[in-house]
Amino acid sequence: MNIQLALDRLSIEEALSIADRVEPYIDWIEVGTSLIKEFGMESVRLLKEAFPHIMIVADCKTFDNAVYEFELCFSAGADVATVLGTAPAVSIEACMETAKKHGKQVMVDLLNASEEQIQMCSQFEEAILCSHVSKDEQEMRGQKGRLHIPSFSNRLAMAGGISIDSFCEIKKHSPYVAIIGSSITKADDPALAAKTFYEMAKQQKEKACE
Amino acid sequence: MNIQLALDRLSIEEALSIADRVEPYIDWIEVGTSLIKEFGMESVRLLKEAFPHIMIVADCKTFDNAVYEFELCFSAGADVATVLGTAPAVSIEACMETAKKHGKQVMVDLLNASEEQIQMCSQFEEAILCSHVSKDEQEMRGQKGRLHIPSFSNRLAMAGGISIDSFCEIKKHSPYVAIIGSSITKADDPALAAKTFYEMAKQQKEKACE
Repeated sequence: MNIQLALDRLSIEEALSIADRVEPYIDWIEVGTSLIKEFGMESVRLLKEAFPHIMIVADCKTFDNAVYEFELCFSAGADVATVLGTAPAVSIEACMETAKKHGKQVMVDLLNASEEQIQMCSQFEEAILCSHVSKDEQEMRGQKGRLHIPSFSNRLAMAGGISIDSFCEIKKHSPYVAIIGSSITKADDPALAAKTFYEMAKQQKEKACE
Repeated sequence: MNIQLALDRLSIEEALSIADRVEPYIDWIEVGTSLIKEFGMESVRLLKEAFPHIMIVADCKTFDNAVYEFELCFSAGADVATVLGTAPAVSIEACMETAKKHGKQVMVDLLNASEEQIQMCSQFEEAILCSHVSKDEQEMRGQKGRLHIPSFSNRLAMAGGISIDSFCEIKKHSPYVAIIGSSITKADDPALAAKTFYEMAKQQKEKACE
């Protein structure tokens, strides 16, 4: 399992500082949608520059203009870029092709996708499929931790309000990527929080979640 | 009818320059998703600074984290911000509330929304509903000009490959906003192209499209 640190609602300086403190305990760094929309590709560029050895995920949530947006992300240094599962199929296909051309990866965010859309996305065998409870749904409906898990993905990511308390539940699904945001970035001690997730992730199942 | 100039796949300097040349013939300026993702809110800020008297639409295509993203757009000077019709209902509601709080407007992009989602969005009477054929769909499927028009919106926007040739067809639907991108920005003479749309839009129906 890879632990992806999601950096959102931060300045670039704050994002760099948190990533620096938790770096030993994380596998991937996500430049969150809010950073991209606030600061543009500069946010991706600076994170990759600071952490060239770590996988950088640009959470650009592409919905149209797929080639252009994915080229932007990969040029800025991203190793993975995201597309919405509710986007037109042609756009998702274009993301897959653009990533393949660059030797990079695609994560499809399944937030609010229909069963039909999830089935369609699952045909892209190289894609990472991200089961995601949105921030707004967590806050408005108190759905923290309730995730719809597609059963057919061999490259599953899980995101949305994952906490130390809910992490054993997440681990049961053996995701390829567990995406963790504010449980690390807003912790009193982000490094300690990240270390706790790291140790739980790396330990054998029976030991981690007894 | 308002003519909204969509600025995409340009540097900020190019966007400012084109907007400056066509300004007499347009009503609204859209800072396109590609500008926002490449340059962040600086793109919105600079366009509003240069054209304080023109309505600025931030095409942020919000899908989650709605309050935060809409606050970013409005703080940067946007008069309208966009949310995807495929987003969770709670996010669209949060956009409506945030816009109301700031005395601003919401445009809901109906691209790839289901009938059910379009019905749901139509309940937001203050929202501008945007019927939209995506760039990727136009290019991959040759759907230029084919738009699904919701019959129940009193604040209809139309977007996607609108050309001088297809403009009479658009005009028949009496949209509140017609969104025009590359037919102006990629014209040999953007000002002449914009002036042509402007005159067609302002003339009475029978005169414009004989």
